[in-house]
Parts: sequence; structure tokens; C-alpha cells
Amino acid sequence: MTRALSVTREENFPEWYLSVVRDADMAESSAVRGCMVIKPWGFGVWELIQRELDQQIKDTGHENCYFPLFIPLRFIAKEAQHVEGFAKEMAVVTHHRLKSIDGVLQPDPEAKLEEPLVVRPTSETIIGDTFQRWVQSYRDLPLLINQWANVVRWEMRPRLFLRTAEFLWQEGHTAHADGDEAMAETRLMLDVYRRFCEDFLAMPVVAGEKPENERFPGAVSTYSVEAMMQDGKALQAGTSHYLGTHFAEAQNIRYQTAEGGVALCHTTSWGVSTRLVGGVIMTHGDDDGLRLPPAIAPKQVVIVPMLRGKPEDEAVLDFCEALRRQLAAVGLRAAVDKKQIKSADKRWNWVRRGAPVIVEVGPRDVAAGVVTFMRRDRLRDGDKVISANAGLDDFVGGAAALLADIQANLFNEAKARLDTNLRSDLKTFADIAAYFGAAAADDADSFKGWVRAPWCKPTGAALEQVEERLKALKLTIRNAPLGQSGPYGACVFTGAPGVEDILIARAY
Amino acid sequence: MTRALSVTREENFPEWYLSVVRDADMAESSAVRGCMVIKPWGFGVWELIQRELDQQIKDTGHENCYFPLFIPLRFIAKEAQHVEGFAKEMAVVTHHRLKSIDGVLQPDPEAKLEEPLVVRPTSETIIGDTFQRWVQSYRDLPLLINQWANVVRWEMRPRLFLRTAEFLWQEGHTAHADGDEAMAETRLMLDVYRRFCEDFLAMPVVAGEKPENERFPGAVSTYSVEAMMQDGKALQAGTSHYLGTHFAEAQNIRYQTAEGGVALCHTTSWGVSTRLVGGVIMTHGDDDGLRLPPAIAPKQVVIVPMLRGKPEDEAVLDFCEALRRQLAAVGLRAAVDKKQIKSADKRWNWVRRGAPVIVEVGPRDVAAGVVTFMRRDRLRDGDKVISANAGLDDFVGGAAALLADIQANLFNEAKARLDTNLRSDLKTFADIAAYFGAAAADDADSFKGWVRAPWCKPTGAALEQVEERLKALKLTIRNAPLGQSGPYGACVFTGAPGVEDILIARAY
Repeated sequence: MTRALSVTREENFPEWYLSVVRDADMAESSAVRGCMVIKPWGFGVWELIQRELDQQIKDTGHENCYFPLFIPLRFIAKEAQHVEGFAKEMAVVTHHRLKSIDGVLQPDPEAKLEEPLVVRPTSETIIGDTFQRWVQSYRDLPLLINQWANVVRWEMRPRLFLRTAEFLWQEGHTAHADGDEAMAETRLMLDVYRRFCEDFLAMPVVAGEKPENERFPGAVSTYSVEAMMQDGKALQAGTSHYLGTHFAEAQNIRYQTAEGGVALCHTTSWGVSTRLVGGVIMTHGDDDGLRLPPAIAPKQVVIVPMLRGKPEDEAVLDFCEALRRQLAAVGLRAAVDKKQIKSADKRWNWVRRGAPVIVEVGPRDVAAGVVTFMRRDRLRDGDKVISANAGLDDFVGGAAALLADIQANLFNEAKARLDTNLRSDLKTFADIAAYFGAAAADDADSFKGWVRAPWCKPTGAALEQVEERLKALKLTIRNAPLGQSGPYGACVFTGAPGVEDILIARAY
Repeated sequence: MTRALSVTREENFPEWYLSVVRDADMAESSAVRGCMVIKPWGFGVWELIQRELDQQIKDTGHENCYFPLFIPLRFIAKEAQHVEGFAKEMAVVTHHRLKSIDGVLQPDPEAKLEEPLVVRPTSETIIGDTFQRWVQSYRDLPLLINQWANVVRWEMRPRLFLRTAEFLWQEGHTAHADGDEAMAETRLMLDVYRRFCEDFLAMPVVAGEKPENERFPGAVSTYSVEAMMQDGKALQAGTSHYLGTHFAEAQNIRYQTAEGGVALCHTTSWGVSTRLVGGVIMTHGDDDGLRLPPAIAPKQVVIVPMLRGKPEDEAVLDFCEALRRQLAAVGLRAAVDKKQIKSADKRWNWVRRGAPVIVEVGPRDVAAGVVTFMRRDRLRDGDKVISANAGLDDFVGGAAALLADIQANLFNEAKARLDTNLRSDLKTFADIAAYFGAAAADDADSFKGWVRAPWCKPTGAALEQVEERLKALKLTIRNAPLGQSGPYGACVFTGAPGVEDILIARAY
């Protein structure tokens, strides 16, 4: 069976992933270790993600700002837990000038900074320093801010989109008068992420609270949305943190209350990143390449003229252009691929890139006024590539509905996979170990999905023990799903009465 | 005469500038030397600039990408002129980890990078390295790329928006098969900038070519658009560079020609930055604060309810909200300021921020169904603040035209200032020296505007001499305006026959 990629998901999922990233023209490695170049098609996806999510962030009352790339070392040192969590992986600026010495360009020893600057791994500390100035009175609260920015966390094993030294993200930061309001904000933004992933990326997620060992450094509670990839692993797609008063204490964010007293603010932060693009690839890609949900496809309908270097080419191009204009007129993103290469190559380029609908136009289509098209979400019947026909007007009139159907179909496919592969029938750790362990014996990466199981929510050393036992099976606790209610079975780790269900999975 | 700012343009232009930036809530200094925090109102202006210019960049065939923040030191070292021009002011990353040693958090000596990384001051070198891989054949050309990014150039005398260590910008980078096409691209983008400044920022500019001493490091030709600020100084608002084959040679960007040979690409780069926001402030601000052209006003119509804590407040708020909805329905950006502060304070906040139209609604307006509004561009008659009235429907129906009139009025005012203060009657350097020098004697910063004068376009040492003579008067050559034709008078520097006119001015 010939597919458009040289490796299938089944053969080697990590290699398949890299081949989609490459062959779909999404991104590539750069000359700088761990930093990627995001190519036009990949960046187009990110731009659509940004545009939609930005609107949702604004619609929930937040305003965009921009804060400095650099963070003074002393700010990082202020919040102890934060230091612990981030200090190991930051890019440090120590000089502000280069100089040619003995013919070798190098940091100028005379331009050493008095205080090193850290390239932001996240901006709680520098934004907190600003909030401290902006918040004076209860009238200034809540303060609801977001920024779109690049951040850097040194990565020893980088992977395009999923884990890169530099990545793009949005980080929301808010300050509130009390903990209840801050917690409501934390949960509101988690829900914005959940809906965004499901409705826009067609990527079903489970929203829940992280166990204490997986919290953001300095947070009181961390929530996440987790998505199931096609290898059964979990991808943390977004996080939302209630920071309590930890950062407010470290940065001195206080306000005058309505009663004339002084109180510490409660703060939150929340973010999603270019990692989402990796999630989309591993949720929707198939062995022919990427399949993009129409909502984030830079081109939703790609029209490929089948040119033969003959006089009828002109009529073909005219037909393509007219079709493009009609689709644009109904608000769709359509393009004609006029590149001077073989039309079969163009078709397969767009299949690999995951354009939702690919139209091929030849002289016979023009003569008959017919549009011949492929749906990328249902490309094949067995080995055979399927195409459909419609009259020109019918096609244009039905295009928006066709795209909506593709969007829904991709979501439903992913949702069915998640539902089918979320086991909740394993009652003990031994069961879990047998289930995942058996796989580990012959193939550590075979598809297993997730397990949902009750636990007694241990803390401290007891939690560390749980973590170690899971780690031996390459497993982690993803989150405790929201909206659950008991009764719960016995804790799979201790046999003690369970207090909630958690998701256990291998993860990115 | 009482104004909304504590300092006037006449009293102290630099202080006036800083007070507008502060009192219009545009930006503020951060804890990181030379780096600013862009506040919601200022960032809102930048977002509108970005959205519109991005569309124009895409409409001219360019695609957005994202390239790494860091540049390996060896890349910088490759292009000799480029090194010379930038090596003095870069942030250098030397470590990838912090460590607490003897209780002090510091760069971990064991995590020193083998090769230092430079935080991009501009991206020609790293993008060139990528282009070298992307361009194989003439079929891959032209390659038309843009990115929106943050860049860092260490600044000893930072100034908010105008000169900051970190700033936001777009940088276009293109590769072409030959010099003519690359030059056409360079000029096309210069013209995009010119139209953008004039039509969108209401900021008239003069487009022209920089003299050789003012070229971008590594460029064959540099073009700029220059705007006149209200202190008579020039602000370089955007640049477009034809780079010849310099970067292509350094980065090995070659392509197979249609004839089967191998040739070097010709490249271009062009950019505008957050500096434009500074230009807008110094073009349109007055002694009451900022005046924003409606095209870049985050809120075009701000509605201030005059609340008295009485039962009729509700009707006032309802009226305000209904008006906002009606304005939104005709595509305008309108907002109701519900902050719990005095309505007079709100009015003046919006005057200082430069909202184009400010509506104040009291119970009498509600009763009469009348809208009372101020045009920010014509706020006062003498000392007196002017307001106008219109029936609700008339106001809503005429709002778009009102904003268009404000946009045009701000442009015309700035254009008249540019035209009036561009002297072309000074025939010799002595005349120029007397004109600017007289000012230097009593007040170096008094308004003088620009001089347009013929020169013989000297190069090398002769040009350096010209530069020195101008520098003594704090003057620089801004550019040689496009579209000029002779005959030219004698060169103001040498008396030799002139070959073109240049603009001479003090500058930011």
C-alpha cells in the first residue's frame, strides 16, 4: 500500500511525526540548537490559532500588553519555588557587546553586565513587578492582561513544536482582590482553552486539576487540558494556574481595600503555545500526511489546474480563478496553485499539507462545468483515492457546509478514539502495571491509551512514592478530571478509600 | 491657559513627549534598562498598525514565517560590513543554566555555551542561512518572506518607543533571481510604507534614498521614509534595503538558473517598528495629550456616562450602551467608560489618550435624545473646550464620516507643517549654518524644520567631510527624495555642479 509519507504511524510514530512536520512544510530545525524555523504553512496555522484565541481572550475582558524579553536575575531569585522549577533551563545574557579581539569576534570583556539578564522562560516575575505599580486600590482590580510572546527554556532533547528551546505562546496574567475571584478566572480560562481545542482545533481534551507534584513552580493549583495523541500518549495542551498570593508576596502586589485596609492580590496565569500545532498534527495526521481542521487551514480549498502546455490551459486557469473568487466571496480561504510543477505533484503536496478540500481542474471539467474534488479527511477507500463531483454552483453553494462537515468529522474521529481508549476497569496498580507493563516488554510504544482510576490523593512523600511507581512504567498522572462525582473505588495505589478519579497515561 | 498636560511642546519638547507617553497610558520604563512595558492603550495602537500593515504585506505576495531569536556568533562574523555596523550593541547569551552557588543565584560555570548566541538585532544572517536551503532553482524564486518579531540592540540613551533596547517590528526578507527585480521589490515596499504612513497614520513622509554613509550595514542601497516631528526634527519611520549579493555570498544563497547555470541571489530587507508609535505621538500630539488618527485608535468613540449615584443613572447607562451597540453595528470601535471615577476625570483621561471622539451623556441628553460630543482634533477654541450636539440617529449615521474627517484633518495639519517648514531657498552651506546655527546659539532645539538643497553626491572621504560639517550643527542628511528632476543648483557643500537634492535636518 503506497502512502504519501515514507513512514506510517504504526511503523514508527516519532519518525512519522517528524516526517509530517517536514513533508507538510510546517517547520524545520535551525542552525541554533533547539530553535525551529516555522515555515509559511505552519505559521499560517499558528496565525489562525492566534487570531481566534486572541478574540476569545479579549471577549473575556482581557487586554494585550507587551513586557520585556529580559528578566533581571534578582527577580527570578525572589520567588523560591519558581527558582527551583525554572533555574535549570534558562538562557542567560551576560554581555551587551561583541568585540573583535585578535581577529576573533567575542563577547567584549569590558561590556559585562553588572547583573545578568535571563531570557524569559515565563513572565510572572517581570509582570508582577509591573502589577505592583499598576495596582493601588481595589478600583484597579481585577487587572486582566495577556501577552503574545516568545519564551526560552533550554531543552536537552528538543522536538519540533512539542519541545523547543524557543517557542511562541500567549501568557495571561491577572490580579484579583480575593482568592475566589482568582480561582474563578483560573477556571474560566481553562474552559476557554477546552472549548477552543474542541471547537477550533477539533481536538477533544479532558480538563482537570494537576496533582501537587505536577504544579507550576509557585502555583497553589494548576489545571490542564489533556489531549490523546494517536500513539495513545497524552499531550498537555494548555494550563491555567491559580497562584494564590505567592507571586504577590514576592513582588509586593498590594492594594488598598474598600474599607481602607491593605491586602495582597491573588494572581493567576495561563497559557498555550505553538505546542498546540504539534497536538493538531498528532491528533489528525494520517499516513498520507497532515489533515487540517478547516478552522485552522490557511487554505481551506486548494484548486490545482491540470495544465498540459496546450491552448486549453487558459480556459482551465480561468475556470480555477473564477472558482477561487466565488469561494472567497462566500468567505472561504481558497487558492489556485500555479506553481510550475506537475499537477500530480501539486495534488500530493496539498494532501501532505492537509488542505481540507483539494479540487483538480482539467479541460473536461471546464467543458462540463463540473468540480472534481477530494476531501482530505476521507481521502481513500482502501488504497484508492476517492474524488467526488458537483456542478460548479452546487459546489460553491455547499462548500461552507462541506468544510463544517470535515471539521465535525475530524472531531468525532478523535473523540471516538479518546472515548474508546480511556479504560476505567483497572482496579489495582497490579492491573495497571500488567496492562502497560505487558506492552513495555515487547513494545514500549504500542498503543495503550489512558487509564482512569480512583486514588486517595496522597501528598508529600506518599505522592512521591506513587510518582516513582508510575515512572517505572513511564507513566504520569495527567489530571483529575473536572465535574466528577463519587462514589469512588479503592485507591489503585494504596487500597485506601478513593477520593477522586485521576487520568494515568504516558505523555509528551 | 490650563492644558491637560503639565508641560507644553513649546516649553520642553522632550519632556512633553515623555509626559504624553505616560499620561496617555502608552508605555512605561521597566526594571530592565532600556526595555519598555507597552501598556494596553499603546499596545492597542500597535495591534492596529500590525493588522493593517500585515494585510498590505500579504497583499503584495509575502508570507509570514518565524525564525529563531538567537543567532550563532559565527553567522554575525560572516558578513564583514554587517559586523562593523552591529557588533557594538548586541545582547550576548553565554550560559544556558543558572545555579545557586554559596546561596547566590548565578550563571552556572558548567553550563557555558561552546559558541555564544546573539539575541537578534535583525535577522538577515539567520534567515539567509535558511534561504540557502530553501532556494535551489529559479522556480523557487522570488522568495518573499516577512516576520513580526522582537529584536534587541543595546542602547546607551534609551527613549520610550523611539530608541529602546528591545523593540517590536516586522522585517521582510526576500531573494530574487536578479538585481532589477530585487530593486523593484525594495522600492515597492518603500512605497507600501509611504502609503501606510500617510493613509493610516495620517503622517506625511518623504521617501528617498539614503546617502552611502547612512546605509544599512551590508546594503547596496538604503531607502527611507522620513517624517517631520513637531519640533522640526526628522524621524526615520521605515527603511527598505537592496542588499545586492552581499548576504547571498556570505550565506551561500545560490540557485540553478533556467539555463542550467548557477547564480547568486539578490536579496532585500525592509522594516518598520514600534518607533512608528513615537512618530504618531510627535506628529499629532498637542498640549492636551495624544490625538490618535481614527484608523489606529483602539477606541474611536468613547462614551462617558455622567453618573450622580441617582435613580436616573440607569437610564444614562442604558442610553450609553445603546449608542455603543449602534456604533459597533456600523463597524466602529466604541466603548463605554464605566470606571468608578468622576466623569470629568474620565473625560480628561480620554482627551490625554487621544480618543478621536468623546461623548458625554447626562440625564438631559437622554431626555432629549441628543448626543453631545467633542472632536479630539479640534478640542478647543482658544482656551475653551468645544462640544457639538446631534440627534442620536444623525450622530450614529454620521459617525463614520466624522471619523474620516478627523483622519483627513490630522493628515492635512501635519502635511501643511511639513510643506511650510521645508526650506529650499538656502543656497550655500554658510546659509544653512547661519539658519541652524543662529538657533544653536540661543536654543539648539528651537523649531527649524528641514532644508532641501542640491549637492554633488560626494563619496568616501569627501562625504565624511560633509558629514563632519553637518554634525557640528547637529545636522544629518535624511535622504535624496524620490521623483526629483533637475536642473540642480550648485552643491551647497562644494559649489560644484549639483546632481540631486537632499534633505538636511536634525533627527531622532
